[in-house]
Amino acid sequence: MRIVVLAGGIGGARFLRGLKAAAPDADITVIGNTGDDIHLFGLKVCPDLDTVMYTLGGGINEDQGWGRADETFRVKEELAAYGVGPEWFGLGDRDFATHIVRTQMLGAGYPLSAVTQALCDRWQPGVRLLPMTDDRIETHVAIEEDGEQRAVHFQEYWVRLRASVDAKAVVPVGAEQAAPAPGVLEAVAQADVILFPPSNPVVSVGTILAVPGIREAIAEAGAPVVGLSPLVGDAPVRGMADKVLAAVGVASTASAVAGHYGARRRPARDGAGAGLLDGWLVDTVDAGRVPEVEAAGIRCRAVPLMMTDLDATAAMAREALALAEEVRA
Amino acid sequence: MRIVVLAGGIGGARFLRGLKAAAPDADITVIGNTGDDIHLFGLKVCPDLDTVMYTLGGGINEDQGWGRADETFRVKEELAAYGVGPEWFGLGDRDFATHIVRTQMLGAGYPLSAVTQALCDRWQPGVRLLPMTDDRIETHVAIEEDGEQRAVHFQEYWVRLRASVDAKAVVPVGAEQAAPAPGVLEAVAQADVILFPPSNPVVSVGTILAVPGIREAIAEAGAPVVGLSPLVGDAPVRGMADKVLAAVGVASTASAVAGHYGARRRPARDGAGAGLLDGWLVDTVDAGRVPEVEAAGIRCRAVPLMMTDLDATAAMAREALALAEEVRA
Repeated sequence: MRIVVLAGGIGGARFLRGLKAAAPDADITVIGNTGDDIHLFGLKVCPDLDTVMYTLGGGINEDQGWGRADETFRVKEELAAYGVGPEWFGLGDRDFATHIVRTQMLGAGYPLSAVTQALCDRWQPGVRLLPMTDDRIETHVAIEEDGEQRAVHFQEYWVRLRASVDAKAVVPVGAEQAAPAPGVLEAVAQADVILFPPSNPVVSVGTILAVPGIREAIAEAGAPVVGLSPLVGDAPVRGMADKVLAAVGVASTASAVAGHYGARRRPARDGAGAGLLDGWLVDTVDAGRVPEVEAAGIRCRAVPLMMTDLDATAAMAREALALAEEVRA
Repeated sequence: MRIVVLAGGIGGARFLRGLKAAAPDADITVIGNTGDDIHLFGLKVCPDLDTVMYTLGGGINEDQGWGRADETFRVKEELAAYGVGPEWFGLGDRDFATHIVRTQMLGAGYPLSAVTQALCDRWQPGVRLLPMTDDRIETHVAIEEDGEQRAVHFQEYWVRLRASVDAKAVVPVGAEQAAPAPGVLEAVAQADVILFPPSNPVVSVGTILAVPGIREAIAEAGAPVVGLSPLVGDAPVRGMADKVLAAVGVASTASAVAGHYGARRRPARDGAGAGLLDGWLVDTVDAGRVPEVEAAGIRCRAVPLMMTDLDATAAMAREALALAEEVRA
């Protein structure tokens, strides 16, 4: 079974671990968000790709969900001693090595997809990890800070500001000129199942869908498309998805997010293009929203959606695959 | 008093510490060798400049004479886990930060001289540290290894091979197209004293002299030029200078090195250009070589030349300054 997953960082990575447990023989291709990539200290940092790679490769800091286990911060301390920041981004020594290798390979002319494959040669994540694009896309967030309108890099909004101010707009800068990375459209076309894990629908999955050609390929794919709500009880399970959902005019409910993705074979509600979902899982606490979702033309089930441990996460993945089979039939 | 010093790495840096103690009020400009600079992991590493900066700034690993005190090697271990080398070059985590800052600034368009000044803003070495050039020069060494003629970067010859094979030739690649960094020729012209510390006469001081204009400026400077022999008892005090002296046809004696630099107002013995030395210090064990040096037209004294501690090194610096005054008078 060929499964394609559109993944952001922590939520996507943890879901993938459950999916691998639920479908150990599946051929899984992950299309990773690169909109939160950032150049720091002259190095190319790809937080979402690395979170997937480290999580599936056994190198992740389990408690925080990002960065390396058993990490130290000598390089960062020295950079601060030189007065070189930003200090708000936590790059550890082991993590630095990844960015050094990536930057060196990019400088030598390799595309990000080839670099990601080389890094995965070490980590053996057990999935094929593709960046959504080899082109540069940076998600910027328009905010008002100290009475001034300005646009900040998504990482600055998320990490430095901790989404403490309202996002007026979220813009994947460079997306219009980007093309899907090699293998992305082929994987979508050949998939047996396409899954949207409980990643951020705006700055993770939404950015992937902003790469011209990817949304259309999913809308037209032969495989069923099933998503899992990142909102439980009208709030994000983790992160601050409500802030960026508000920026795109979507309510923080499991049903509103389903409507934002839209039902397949119908235009998406907000005019973003073709609808994408055949099926949608909401948490049991949101069972009351199932009829709303189904009324929009999306098959919906209420199941436990808290990724508390590997078993719970694998059960979620099994429910998603089961819903996909139900849709297919 | 304005003193100009042509410095390599460890020997030059330690001598400078003694010079600062001997002449605390002097205005010292160091022209640093950059021929042993190397790109590692996509980062620009300047071993000699950093050794001077760390030594005078209090950050050096005193035992080994290079690299940072209290160093760890997490980044390097991770790079090795990615299969990315070379492993023979010992870059520590704290050291990496220096190279990251330097590379980022060079990438932003700053010349190496401006970058070096920015790094020194932190270290406050108490001297003005100038790279010999802002252009790229790499010292390569021609060797025969496993029956094959090949050229290796100086660092590979020195660090990986530990000069265990004969050097057939030493070539400062790029020197012909290089220009002295801003301030270098002016410092030489305005100097009251010019010193050659007991650095390697071929791959340290020799490379600096290979930058077009520097040798000529020193030969024509109004200030006395005094050097200190890096050879004591016909052997290098540290390092493997004998190997690279052989490559340029110079015997490993204190007097032969003086002859290699040549006497001012005379052509240098080996046709390398104008002679440079007014005075030369040899170690007391080499007192028998004083007449040879003086016969070549270079004022010579035999004094203790082992940099065993700061006092001994300061005494050497005082002897060099005294010889300069003697020459001037």
